Amino acid sequence: MADTLAIVGDRWSLLVVRELVFGEHRFDGMQRRIGAARDVLTSRLRKLEDAGVIERRRYSDHPPRHEYLLTQAGRELWPVLLALKEWGDRNLNAGAEPVVLTHRCGDEFHPALACKACGHPLDDDELTITGGTDPPASPLGI
Amino acid sequence: MADTLAIVGDRWSLLVVRELVFGEHRFDGMQRRIGAARDVLTSRLRKLEDAGVIERRRYSDHPPRHEYLLTQAGRELWPVLLALKEWGDRNLNAGAEPVVLTHRCGDEFHPALACKACGHPLDDDELTITGGTDPPASPLGI
Repeated sequence: MADTLAIVGDRWSLLVVRELVFGEHRFDGMQRRIGAARDVLTSRLRKLEDAGVIERRRYSDHPPRHEYLLTQAGRELWPVLLALKEWGDRNLNAGAEPVVLTHRCGDEFHPALACKACGHPLDDDELTITGGTDPPASPLGI
Repeated sequence: MADTLAIVGDRWSLLVVRELVFGEHRFDGMQRRIGAARDVLTSRLRKLEDAGVIERRRYSDHPPRHEYLLTQAGRELWPVLLALKEWGDRNLNAGAEPVVLTHRCGDEFHPALACKACGHPLDDDELTITGGTDPPASPLGI
């Protein structure tokens, strides 16, 4: 988790990923929507590219212009974004949702966590943690 | 999502939440395990307390000593941590897991996302996005 946060652990990087998920692939559009300074956005894009989260593609030669795309690793950040959105809507926006996701079933989408192995929804006190530096080796009491 | 990242969108804040989930509630222990400078950790703890993610509890009067606990809102960040861990284990650690989670079913826990309304596992291209600033209004192509 610490390794992940070294890459995406700042608000701009995850907002870049969000923009790419939303379909905004170009620098100026991202910059306008995110509100980051140009040099900040440039450095985050380079960092995400170096980490293999995004890739840069030239879409015009004259003048030279690039757009940004999520790699497979980048697309796999989607559950992180969903979890952040859900938390914000519940805890900061009092249930209001600036962005609404609709599932194919027709209902509003809210993420539910399940165990991939057994398929059961995850309840409290069902996980045990082992490993880590100086592990507390305690059951996960939430 | 941007609102959430304004609160937890730096690596230290989410590592603090991780430590509290792991059962490390005291400043010195967190500081040692996270490796943040004391003033950085102090500022993050204050920010998380102001945001209602953690609360501070005095556990000794002489000398005055405090520990930190997750609030209900803080405990609800758990899916964010799980998603970050899963991504890092898959994409940075080549499947190796510094920390292993075991589900009550006996298998290693990996998170699966499902739709809370219909219960079906989430597949690609199943969500539609509406709203947001300057909405691209495109289906979510991942």
